[in-house]
Amino acid sequence: MKIIGVDLGGTFTKIGLVDSNTGKIIKKKEIETMVELGGDAVVKRISEGINELVGSETYEAVGIGSPGSIDIENGIVRFSPNFPDWIDFPLGPKLSNLLNKKVYVENDANSFALGEKWFGAGKGKKHIIVLTLGTGVGGGIISHDILITGANGIGAELGHVIINPKGRLCGCGNYGCLEAYASATAIIKMAYEGRKKFPDSIIFKNDKVTAKAVFDAAKSNDRLGLIIRDEVVEALAVAIASFIHTFNPEVVIIGGGISKAGEFLFKPLKSRVNELVMPSFKNSFEIIQSPLVENASILGAASIVLQRRKTT
Amino acid sequence: MKIIGVDLGGTFTKIGLVDSNTGKIIKKKEIETMVELGGDAVVKRISEGINELVGSETYEAVGIGSPGSIDIENGIVRFSPNFPDWIDFPLGPKLSNLLNKKVYVENDANSFALGEKWFGAGKGKKHIIVLTLGTGVGGGIISHDILITGANGIGAELGHVIINPKGRLCGCGNYGCLEAYASATAIIKMAYEGRKKFPDSIIFKNDKVTAKAVFDAAKSNDRLGLIIRDEVVEALAVAIASFIHTFNPEVVIIGGGISKAGEFLFKPLKSRVNELVMPSFKNSFEIIQSPLVENASILGAASIVLQRRKTT
Repeated sequence: MKIIGVDLGGTFTKIGLVDSNTGKIIKKKEIETMVELGGDAVVKRISEGINELVGSETYEAVGIGSPGSIDIENGIVRFSPNFPDWIDFPLGPKLSNLLNKKVYVENDANSFALGEKWFGAGKGKKHIIVLTLGTGVGGGIISHDILITGANGIGAELGHVIINPKGRLCGCGNYGCLEAYASATAIIKMAYEGRKKFPDSIIFKNDKVTAKAVFDAAKSNDRLGLIIRDEVVEALAVAIASFIHTFNPEVVIIGGGISKAGEFLFKPLKSRVNELVMPSFKNSFEIIQSPLVENASILGAASIVLQRRKTT
Repeated sequence: MKIIGVDLGGTFTKIGLVDSNTGKIIKKKEIETMVELGGDAVVKRISEGINELVGSETYEAVGIGSPGSIDIENGIVRFSPNFPDWIDFPLGPKLSNLLNKKVYVENDANSFALGEKWFGAGKGKKHIIVLTLGTGVGGGIISHDILITGANGIGAELGHVIINPKGRLCGCGNYGCLEAYASATAIIKMAYEGRKKFPDSIIFKNDKVTAKAVFDAAKSNDRLGLIIRDEVVEALAVAIASFIHTFNPEVVIIGGGISKAGEFLFKPLKSRVNELVMPSFKNSFEIIQSPLVENASILGAASIVLQRRKTT
């Protein structure tokens, strides 16, 4: 079966034609979202983008991963920080009308979780936690083979689990959220905070302070880089140990830009999580770097279609 | 329909005959568990206890809430801190043989969650978090109408979610678990720790330092009592805010001995949780003191039967 996966972003939107049997992206393209043109124009641009991409091929249905709070039954974006004008915007029905195909909408972090379940490191598994470490920290939970989104579909905000109530200030206003430690935003902030004490850190030899620059510095044994790496690892380990005690998952999958630090992040993280979990949980889980890389968002969006078909 | 609910405890075992339509306990009794006699003798004592209680009445099936890790499909107690000799003990099948009735076994914290869903503050709801604040802190999660127990059935250890990694030492060996703050064990420990600074606290006027004595002291404006109450409230609030961000539940139900402190605990707790949750979660949940009181464990055990029938 061929499916369209759409990763709707605040600036760019990725569209891919996916073979659901192989998990391969047959072809893909990226368009500018152009939020400023308004919701209807965005939907029209997506529909044109899909038609151009597909050409003479056929496809079954469309899955869209969108930031924000989604009414998944009706395909409505209730609100989204990336699309401030979209209040109860019927994204799914509008696109479905233009394309004359079924369109399924899901929150983008949840769709990432589904992508891992259908095509990634969670294949064949029923208990999966995913974390995306990017500008913020996103979460997705699959437990007993169902996507855990809660009563209003706004759960799985794993970036806003509080790991240290007297800790760092988070963008959400609370102190000590996971996102206040393990997001690119937090890492860059920690670097600037460390500048007074470590003015010669190689982090600041770069044009721009980025999370990647911090991890690269740490890899070269830069003191500030290592301090920050250790703080990120500790925060993630505490949160993941709690998720393991809560969900008893088979796998914890970590994606997003920061996960590209690879073993330099994952090795100490695995070791610390193993220290923190209670004896009965030892060896009950794996911690894996997302294998889907830059295709994660398109595959995740496509997998929304597969998941919904399974449950309806 | 009439069901037997059995609350298997390390010292005493409660047995009740429950009318599943009204949620009323028709009659109940308590027997000594007598673990020291061995598993088979315990099962025989339970079966005799049930037969004596039931007399000439009829009943459909038996639900047992047991401490420890349970293989729910096969009714096997894999291991339990309360019954150290029971390794993979087939509690369900053995009792079923003696009674010639269906017997369903579930972990006691999970059965408490089911009891709230079928007979208590979670009636008609599909997204429920329960916490039992007793000697330890137990947890139960119902999300999307299913009991969340994880891949090996050992999840929902909400007492061992880490709320402060540099905080108080927990019995499990970690620092800063919820149980290290919100259990009777922790509260009594905090009282003794405070004795040097507050030797005249009325907590120590009692024969015995108990969690109840601490809350009673706090109610009389005793300084140490209030300090401890505030620490318990803060820990619970941080954990509950994280559970709300994770599960987006309709209701958080708190039971166990410590919950009997009532509004003196619940009022500041509700207010602090409301401060901590993100705007989109405001007014999405209630925090409720368990209404089932001392019948919670028998009703919980009986509700295992109802839940399993629903899903099979």
